[in-house]
Amino acid sequence: MADELYVGIDVGGTSVKIGVMTKEGDVVAKAGVPTPPLVDEAGYTAVTDGVKSMLESAGVDASLLKGIGLAVPCPVPADGNISVIANLSLNLLGVHDALQASFPGVYVGFLNDANAAAMGELWRGAGAGYNSLVLVTLGTGIGAGVVCDGKVLAGANGAAGELGHVIVNPAESRQCGCGRHGCLEQYASATGIVNSYRMECEKRGSEPVELSGPSDSRSVFEALVVGDEAARAAVDTMAGALGFELANAACSFDPEVFVLGGGVSASAEHYLDRVTEVFKKMTLSCCADTPITVASLGNDAGMLGAAYYAVANA
Amino acid sequence: MADELYVGIDVGGTSVKIGVMTKEGDVVAKAGVPTPPLVDEAGYTAVTDGVKSMLESAGVDASLLKGIGLAVPCPVPADGNISVIANLSLNLLGVHDALQASFPGVYVGFLNDANAAAMGELWRGAGAGYNSLVLVTLGTGIGAGVVCDGKVLAGANGAAGELGHVIVNPAESRQCGCGRHGCLEQYASATGIVNSYRMECEKRGSEPVELSGPSDSRSVFEALVVGDEAARAAVDTMAGALGFELANAACSFDPEVFVLGGGVSASAEHYLDRVTEVFKKMTLSCCADTPITVASLGNDAGMLGAAYYAVANA
Repeated sequence: MADELYVGIDVGGTSVKIGVMTKEGDVVAKAGVPTPPLVDEAGYTAVTDGVKSMLESAGVDASLLKGIGLAVPCPVPADGNISVIANLSLNLLGVHDALQASFPGVYVGFLNDANAAAMGELWRGAGAGYNSLVLVTLGTGIGAGVVCDGKVLAGANGAAGELGHVIVNPAESRQCGCGRHGCLEQYASATGIVNSYRMECEKRGSEPVELSGPSDSRSVFEALVVGDEAARAAVDTMAGALGFELANAACSFDPEVFVLGGGVSASAEHYLDRVTEVFKKMTLSCCADTPITVASLGNDAGMLGAAYYAVANA
Repeated sequence: MADELYVGIDVGGTSVKIGVMTKEGDVVAKAGVPTPPLVDEAGYTAVTDGVKSMLESAGVDASLLKGIGLAVPCPVPADGNISVIANLSLNLLGVHDALQASFPGVYVGFLNDANAAAMGELWRGAGAGYNSLVLVTLGTGIGAGVVCDGKVLAGANGAAGELGHVIVNPAESRQCGCGRHGCLEQYASATGIVNSYRMECEKRGSEPVELSGPSDSRSVFEALVVGDEAARAAVDTMAGALGFELANAACSFDPEVFVLGGGVSASAEHYLDRVTEVFKKMTLSCCADTPITVASLGNDAGMLGAAYYAVANA
């Protein structure tokens, strides 16, 4: 049995994932509870009870627990000052105090979920063995996390590594969800791919394939496979924007490896070569051989990264 | 008298600046020698003798010397592996070994000069009191250095913070010195401002003012003051590109402060308001209040940052 244990908690939109693991990141047990509104005692208790019952059912001696890390879907500044964060459905101070009261003497810390995923991939995933990486999570939107010299970049306002909102096309007329124009997210997220596909169909006067929703990029990739030209164009737009942004990110962070995660990364076979080609063409020559690879931890990345944060800071 | 002393050396194109300072960055003495080719014993001896004679003339007890940092005009990877760096006029391993032989038991370390300047400004300059900053040095070209959580980002290939070569205009047809197209350096360096000015004059059919050379941006700023429309347009192009790049850098590093240095920063009164305006408009709302200010250490920034590197690593 390990002599020290750590808990990683990933607070997602639909579920809270909880894992207990060793100092080396071997998962001893994991569980999930539906995400409650984390703004009152009932919500906090759902989390603290979730941790307690998981420790119990795994037969873990609670005295071995040294730290708890939480990955949360909101910015966390580098100074860790969570009291300044206004969030209607997530009271970080409340969650912190409830966990601290339930586990006295145990370190409790927070980090942003995209940053946690990056740290998780570096620790036990596609970035294992590296000391720096940039993870770009291609989902409904785009999250990103940057690790340099083994540490996550948080930023003064928690906005470091917000690569989904780097503007890659200042000439864009359509507005991004953030209110600005031409963000990477508008082209390379699942939603962005679907939007580009619809525009390309309109331009060609062709009928789009049936889509299950506004971010059903999987159907666009399936259309591409059967020769849909509009799908090809949409995916090329995606690959061009992403390759360009990674080229600029290399001049910014110069990581050892780029990792693509999120639901869209499951279709990487359809664009990874093109992304790499654009990257090599557009980046500084000394960075042209930086590998671009696909994440390996799936939905556990944030939970693992949160636990690592506790290991590093407890 | 201080109980520990550190030497900072800034290897520039024309002179090697050497300073001895306390652990807190108070300069005890400084001197300069013309930059020799640093590839053989004669060159190395010029540097080691320069350090020795400065320590002697300042009446410094050499036993108090704990560390020597060198800022060098070439990339230095995060792992500090200088043996991989090919440079015809600068043999870092040779310089290292010569210094180590002259000062046995003293720490000797290297960092990139733009990164050193950023660290110097954070330690004793416009970034004093902050824990993170992005310094953009606007000279003949553009150098940049990034400090996050008190540490310089070097990058896997020494290319972190190469913001002069972030592509801000992928549609550019003219080629940058690096062989790519649309780098920040093409618009916001002294050379870039002069090029834009000449293009604007040509477009208007107006006669450019007399320029002393291809990077005489000072004359362009003087022309602007007396109402030269082409100069106004060139400086607007510069401010637009720089403001845009800082907006994206905020989504990447989210520093507490941006600092502008280099010769062009002496004319900041002519563009700082416009840079700030573009920045505020184009960055994420949470970063819109990040200050953009002017460097204060002038040519001593690299020397100070090099000494700080020795303080931090000795």
